[in-house]
Amino acid sequence: MSEIPILRIGRVLLVSIQVDMHDQLALALQDELTNRIVHDNARGVMIDISALEIVDSFIGRMLNNIAAMSRVLDAVTVVVGMRPAVAITLVELGLTLTGVRTALDVDRGLALVQRIMAEHGDGPAVLGDGDDAGRAG
Amino acid sequence: MSEIPILRIGRVLLVSIQVDMHDQLALALQDELTNRIVHDNARGVMIDISALEIVDSFIGRMLNNIAAMSRVLDAVTVVVGMRPAVAITLVELGLTLTGVRTALDVDRGLALVQRIMAEHGDGPAVLGDGDDAGRAG
Repeated sequence: MSEIPILRIGRVLLVSIQVDMHDQLALALQDELTNRIVHDNARGVMIDISALEIVDSFIGRMLNNIAAMSRVLDAVTVVVGMRPAVAITLVELGLTLTGVRTALDVDRGLALVQRIMAEHGDGPAVLGDGDDAGRAG
Repeated sequence: MSEIPILRIGRVLLVSIQVDMHDQLALALQDELTNRIVHDNARGVMIDISALEIVDSFIGRMLNNIAAMSRVLDAVTVVVGMRPAVAITLVELGLTLTGVRTALDVDRGLALVQRIMAEHGDGPAVLGDGDDAGRAG
């Protein structure tokens, strides 16, 4: 289990970070994510950090990098599931994650991506019913 | 990071298994999942095993247990992201996961839960647009 799975929900890619990140894993994740944004025609990247008890400057930089890469590929990055203690530490460390959108949980993250897509005149990120839940084609 | 995050997508709970499972972690996951099904009024449980290169009898039994517990709480369990090699091994081991529904990926898993919910006369599992993506209240 050396890689982090990237799950597709409609036109949003979801990554749940559960393992300790190190340089190589972070690089592999960035590489895979950018490939998947292009391949899946994704408009949003959601990164769940609810399993993380600590977000240090390394993770903070990784989140900023992913957001910047996604942005140039026209996808919005939303960090979800941040623990209250993590928010306190981030601000104390001066890591305010500029350029990264946040949402309380996956549901609100999806809603945020949908709102941003609607502003850009895109269709829904996730279809509500029918057999194809948001598949592009 | 001793626990596996349970992510809520509308009325579906998503669990992505990325770490090595052991007895205590499996029990904690079952405990937390059943609590969340009741608390979140969930109708579906999706378990992503795309990170697993091996599914042994322990994992197979855990998946069966989760499916059985969810069923008595009126929620359907869908295993998604199974690797081809895992499917071969499962059949060779005689672990055919009876009682567990499977889908190729998260999108199709969500569609399956939605279809089952529609058959039971429920609303959509995930709303397509608007600000509240499938929140119950």
